[in-house]
Amino acid sequence: MTTRAGRHFLQIPGPTNVPDRVLTATARPTIDHRGGEFAELALDLLHRIKPVFGTSGPVVIYPSSGTGAWEAALVNTLSPGDRVLAFETGHFATLWREMAERLGLRVEFVPGDWRRGVDPLVVAERLAADVGHDIAAIMVVHNETSTGVTSRVPEIRAAIDEAGHPALLLVDAISSLASTDYRHDEWGVDVTVGCSQKGLMLPPGLGFNAISEKALSAAERARLPKAYWAWAPILEANERGYYPYTPPTNLLYGLREALLMLEEEGLPNVFARHDRHARATRAAVCGWGLEVLCADEREYSSSLTAVLLGEEHDADKVRQVILDRFDMSLGTGLGRLAGRVFRIGHLGHLNELTLAGTLAGVHMGLQLTGVPVDPTGLEAALEILRAE
Amino acid sequence: MTTRAGRHFLQIPGPTNVPDRVLTATARPTIDHRGGEFAELALDLLHRIKPVFGTSGPVVIYPSSGTGAWEAALVNTLSPGDRVLAFETGHFATLWREMAERLGLRVEFVPGDWRRGVDPLVVAERLAADVGHDIAAIMVVHNETSTGVTSRVPEIRAAIDEAGHPALLLVDAISSLASTDYRHDEWGVDVTVGCSQKGLMLPPGLGFNAISEKALSAAERARLPKAYWAWAPILEANERGYYPYTPPTNLLYGLREALLMLEEEGLPNVFARHDRHARATRAAVCGWGLEVLCADEREYSSSLTAVLLGEEHDADKVRQVILDRFDMSLGTGLGRLAGRVFRIGHLGHLNELTLAGTLAGVHMGLQLTGVPVDPTGLEAALEILRAE
Amino acid sequence: MTTRAGRHFLQIPGPTNVPDRVLTATARPTIDHRGGEFAELALDLLHRIKPVFGTSGPVVIYPSSGTGAWEAALVNTLSPGDRVLAFETGHFATLWREMAERLGLRVEFVPGDWRRGVDPLVVAERLAADVGHDIAAIMVVHNETSTGVTSRVPEIRAAIDEAGHPALLLVDAISSLASTDYRHDEWGVDVTVGCSQKGLMLPPGLGFNAISEKALSAAERARLPKAYWAWAPILEANERGYYPYTPPTNLLYGLREALLMLEEEGLPNVFARHDRHARATRAAVCGWGLEVLCADEREYSSSLTAVLLGEEHDADKVRQVILDRFDMSLGTGLGRLAGRVFRIGHLGHLNELTLAGTLAGVHMGLQLTGVPVDPTGLEAALEILRAE
Amino acid sequence: MTTRAGRHFLQIPGPTNVPDRVLTATARPTIDHRGGEFAELALDLLHRIKPVFGTSGPVVIYPSSGTGAWEAALVNTLSPGDRVLAFETGHFATLWREMAERLGLRVEFVPGDWRRGVDPLVVAERLAADVGHDIAAIMVVHNETSTGVTSRVPEIRAAIDEAGHPALLLVDAISSLASTDYRHDEWGVDVTVGCSQKGLMLPPGLGFNAISEKALSAAERARLPKAYWAWAPILEANERGYYPYTPPTNLLYGLREALLMLEEEGLPNVFARHDRHARATRAAVCGWGLEVLCADEREYSSSLTAVLLGEEHDADKVRQVILDRFDMSLGTGLGRLAGRVFRIGHLGHLNELTLAGTLAGVHMGLQLTGVPVDPTGLEAALEILRAE
Repeated sequence: MTTRAGRHFLQIPGPTNVPDRVLTATARPTIDHRGGEFAELALDLLHRIKPVFGTSGPVVIYPSSGTGAWEAALVNTLSPGDRVLAFETGHFATLWREMAERLGLRVEFVPGDWRRGVDPLVVAERLAADVGHDIAAIMVVHNETSTGVTSRVPEIRAAIDEAGHPALLLVDAISSLASTDYRHDEWGVDVTVGCSQKGLMLPPGLGFNAISEKALSAAERARLPKAYWAWAPILEANERGYYPYTPPTNLLYGLREALLMLEEEGLPNVFARHDRHARATRAAVCGWGLEVLCADEREYSSSLTAVLLGEEHDADKVRQVILDRFDMSLGTGLGRLAGRVFRIGHLGHLNELTLAGTLAGVHMGLQLTGVPVDPTGLEAALEILRAE
Repeated sequence: MTTRAGRHFLQIPGPTNVPDRVLTATARPTIDHRGGEFAELALDLLHRIKPVFGTSGPVVIYPSSGTGAWEAALVNTLSPGDRVLAFETGHFATLWREMAERLGLRVEFVPGDWRRGVDPLVVAERLAADVGHDIAAIMVVHNETSTGVTSRVPEIRAAIDEAGHPALLLVDAISSLASTDYRHDEWGVDVTVGCSQKGLMLPPGLGFNAISEKALSAAERARLPKAYWAWAPILEANERGYYPYTPPTNLLYGLREALLMLEEEGLPNVFARHDRHARATRAAVCGWGLEVLCADEREYSSSLTAVLLGEEHDADKVRQVILDRFDMSLGTGLGRLAGRVFRIGHLGHLNELTLAGTLAGVHMGLQLTGVPVDPTGLEAALEILRAE
Repeated sequence: MTTRAGRHFLQIPGPTNVPDRVLTATARPTIDHRGGEFAELALDLLHRIKPVFGTSGPVVIYPSSGTGAWEAALVNTLSPGDRVLAFETGHFATLWREMAERLGLRVEFVPGDWRRGVDPLVVAERLAADVGHDIAAIMVVHNETSTGVTSRVPEIRAAIDEAGHPALLLVDAISSLASTDYRHDEWGVDVTVGCSQKGLMLPPGLGFNAISEKALSAAERARLPKAYWAWAPILEANERGYYPYTPPTNLLYGLREALLMLEEEGLPNVFARHDRHARATRAAVCGWGLEVLCADEREYSSSLTAVLLGEEHDADKVRQVILDRFDMSLGTGLGRLAGRVFRIGHLGHLNELTLAGTLAGVHMGLQLTGVPVDPTGLEAALEILRAE
Repeated sequence: MTTRAGRHFLQIPGPTNVPDRVLTATARPTIDHRGGEFAELALDLLHRIKPVFGTSGPVVIYPSSGTGAWEAALVNTLSPGDRVLAFETGHFATLWREMAERLGLRVEFVPGDWRRGVDPLVVAERLAADVGHDIAAIMVVHNETSTGVTSRVPEIRAAIDEAGHPALLLVDAISSLASTDYRHDEWGVDVTVGCSQKGLMLPPGLGFNAISEKALSAAERARLPKAYWAWAPILEANERGYYPYTPPTNLLYGLREALLMLEEEGLPNVFARHDRHARATRAAVCGWGLEVLCADEREYSSSLTAVLLGEEHDADKVRQVILDRFDMSLGTGLGRLAGRVFRIGHLGHLNELTLAGTLAGVHMGLQLTGVPVDPTGLEAALEILRAE
């Protein structure tokens, strides 16, 4: 519990600021998870969540972090020793690869510079080379939370299709879901991995798998051992609104409230708002004379912006000064980006003035740590926020 | 319930943004107001509230608005037909005068231009002229919420003392309490009127009277009819931690939490923060090329700033655009200031970045309504917020 | 904050157990009381509250306790020196009489034994004797919270009508409102006084006046001084959804939720539930071999039951043991009933099993303090609760 | 959201009634899980939780259900094809066994009648027979939530020791933890599995593993694939108060509050309270003339009581009537006990009067469904609750 005046600015790229409506929903008394009231809640939820993924298929909800949902995507679809294709787009792609290896998969990891997304041409090349169709799955991080780079999934899909390759497409949409237009069905994704504490505006504690027909049939053959993560018993119980083990009822209350809020605002408006906030943030960064980490403007993230500092500056010092002086949390540089970048989260329950306050805080923090900034940066951001 | 993304900016000069700690405290189950747990709470509260008023004397807490506490100050100390001296410092001073007249008092109302506080020289003159000591009380609004002007109570006290006049000094500290250094005892105030929804960071619903020894003995002679507002039965019941009628238990839970927060931050820090935020706000207003309503820099308010627009602009239109586009509420121009000013509340649970967001919103709103602003205004504010 | 396991049983006759839905509603962020969102809330509330009073006329809501609403009823309708007729039905009737006298009214106080309600025959007699129509108002406590006796307002009305007397009928429905069928319009009540913390299931802090046409015209002539309580400015501002002073927004959030809950359950069901619970409670009391204080079965209260102990037992000791051992608060004997009775509140947000737990607690507490009880008392109560 | 008056009685054996203090703690704003404030919270928690398990060793907390913590216990300590000894004590023992088989373990499942716990003599026999020390682990459900039978872990430990067998002892304490005296260290348990929604009085969403030194070294050799559940990275990150993936911050807020409440009451008092409530419940069941499912009084559960009905009665009908008429949820008969038993949960945040209300509800529900009950059953329970 803090004794600082005013509200903390939680501008990391997740967990995000949870709306009061959602927080108070999560504080409702827990009910019997085998009773009719629960079933009604669950059936409603499982229906309402589909548009967020852009799917008409099933979405499995786990009591877990997003990491758990990564594991679920793998153990439900693959078998020991299966070969998977992955891409070094950043820290989280690297962690997901490590997980796959620990679980006994053989990962072909395409190196990257952490400033670009998955290159669809490379996907095409690798698949073309795999004449025996040995690659069982392709693992793609849609929006790299460590870099603010959004891979172009539709182009990756096109590359797979063009290659006529049967590999499953597994996509981590953890920090894009409910912030960025995402289309599980249209893009032919087989498993989309999500979690609660980003665009869904919830506390952490829920993991998601949206599942294609193809993934469901792969699951029947997949031999990685599984129990907790197994889709089949969950999907079966879900049909009547139940779960094979005690579900995280209170987070589900919150999820329902968050889904209602997304519906009320309208998903297209939600996405447009995130795009606009991201543009305003980049305008500030460029206006200050600093560099956005993402090197390809087709891959700018609408959820977060990683700011690259020159070698003479310590990004973590900037973050610390901002935390100490202005009570704002920003994301640290992860893995090989440590000390070089800080990340501004602008996803979830966020409006223009909170973003303006956020950028003002970054502006002042940079000044206080001796990073030269052009004072017109902030005005450039406001210009975008001001425009209709 | 709103469907807008992000948190509403409630930047009117009260009600202010209630901290989550306070809101959740108010949502605790109500308890027996005649039981020991309640008495413990009340005794603790009645003790902890004294420093906020700068008093070692009693503070009465009413289930009421601040208006109710105004009435309590009058009916406990005065008799029908009593003459009182009051000053037209703005809308609320005018309302308090009307109340006094309705209750049967004769009010001598010194006219004013709504841009200045009570003039201590005028106090001296009026009292000097009152050779028969006919004036029973002087009513002063410390911080005029309609204008952002803070009257200089210590100088008023000095004028009274110099005149050797026995009139009671009744002060409305509604929008200065817990935001601005205030010293009931040291300044010789007889009744200080306060309420919950300003610097005390609570929802509305509590009124306060801090009471001097002199006011207590005046109360023994005062003949205005009273029952609900009567101090005596409350003070008597308070001694054991009780109330003569059902107290607003849940708001008292919140009050206790708010007082703990003020203690944790430290009152001197609270006041310094408000002063700094007010300076930053004025720097923005002046930087934009606009006028602060308060005409005397000795009387600048630390709680709110009223911004005076030229006749060619409609202040309410500015407010409306800001509400519609940026989800921020600002204070309207009241009474004779309608349409001419808008008021920025910067009191209560507020930090640098929320203030920066607030000023960014005003900045954009002014631009959108065609009020010419110098873009360096915002930077001038940030310079003050950035300085230690 | 308690360290006892389980939920406290708050079975005093108010404040009552506030439902979670209501508590969390009161914890929503405070909004601008001059904005459109507030006006929408207020207009909705002022409409929804009418059926609870059984009126189509205006209901004024004060930031106050019920005592404040008593004062409002008097100062809005009467003039200094007016004669009013009141009845000693218990502690609260006595307090209301004292208030009337303090405010400068002449009260004719009909003595009573605190076990019966207002006798309609006495009303008839007194009015018949008042040939000059000197009596300006009749003050009746509908449900005496200190005794558990409900006066028969329709019969009182009939007596007034038969006498052809123009006196106003002022009724305190504080502990019957939203628990007992109450008909302001049909019964020709002129002012009904209510508050939040009883059948309305809210924390304390709101007072109510439902007002007849006749009371409104009386208000035009009434000369008791008033400002805070004055109906006229409130009714005028209410027309557009506003208030002449800062309203207690968060309690109004709670009120809206409570009114929705009453609508969802249906007022007739609410009243039937209270009647049933009261019957069950009396069945337990009689089954134990103890005496219900209320001496006339036509006047049994559906909100609370006062239990009269023999002189050899100390009712406060019973209460203390029950509080210490079973964490349940019961009402104490007030005024002349001190030590002789304890009161079981069974109003508000209460169901069968909580009542069963309550009665089990009383049962055990009586046994522990040596009051002989027949163990079949509890079963008698359950029999009523079990019946459809 | 329900429209029924009063508070729902959630008397299933978990999820249990979450105290308001815990619910509101879970609704605090989520913070940066990589910041100092989080680390402080986590270090505090990881320390405070140890006494609840009776351990001085590490406790790993997962964002998961209890089922997840089952899986964690297995995958961290065992290798594919390992042989484990398990006991058919009820539904959950059967599910845990199924999980073990799915994960690739060979389970020796000792049959049982679902009315008794693990027989220490059988443990001794089986281990004696395993001269090659082929059994890698013994899986014991401490308190069978489906039957209300508590296995005697100390005697099982003694049997293992006597046999000089090196098998790991894995214990599910899901529904005994924080309700029943449990001693991980003293009893030589290697992994204790727990979850949040039972005696810990939290919403569901947290799983626990308390881990012995021996289990830690087994983990170094265990070859079941694991990533999410792997202890090593969690224990390493925990040292500085962090987690290798986003932790369920808001449930951790609640956990801290729940642990404070347990400390305030005192664990010995918590256990004594559960024992007393269980005795009272059994007194009611026996008093009514019904049968407690648990066949051995040394194995009575202090968390729940399963009531066995004669074949002529449908336990689910009793439950349905109680839910419909009295808004109370009871546990259903699981697996082979379906329709034959109902289960009364009396664990967690529960006091005497709520238990009395619970038993009154069961009493009335039995009567309403035609199960003959002796009305003195309830009085027998109250006698126990009344006694010091």
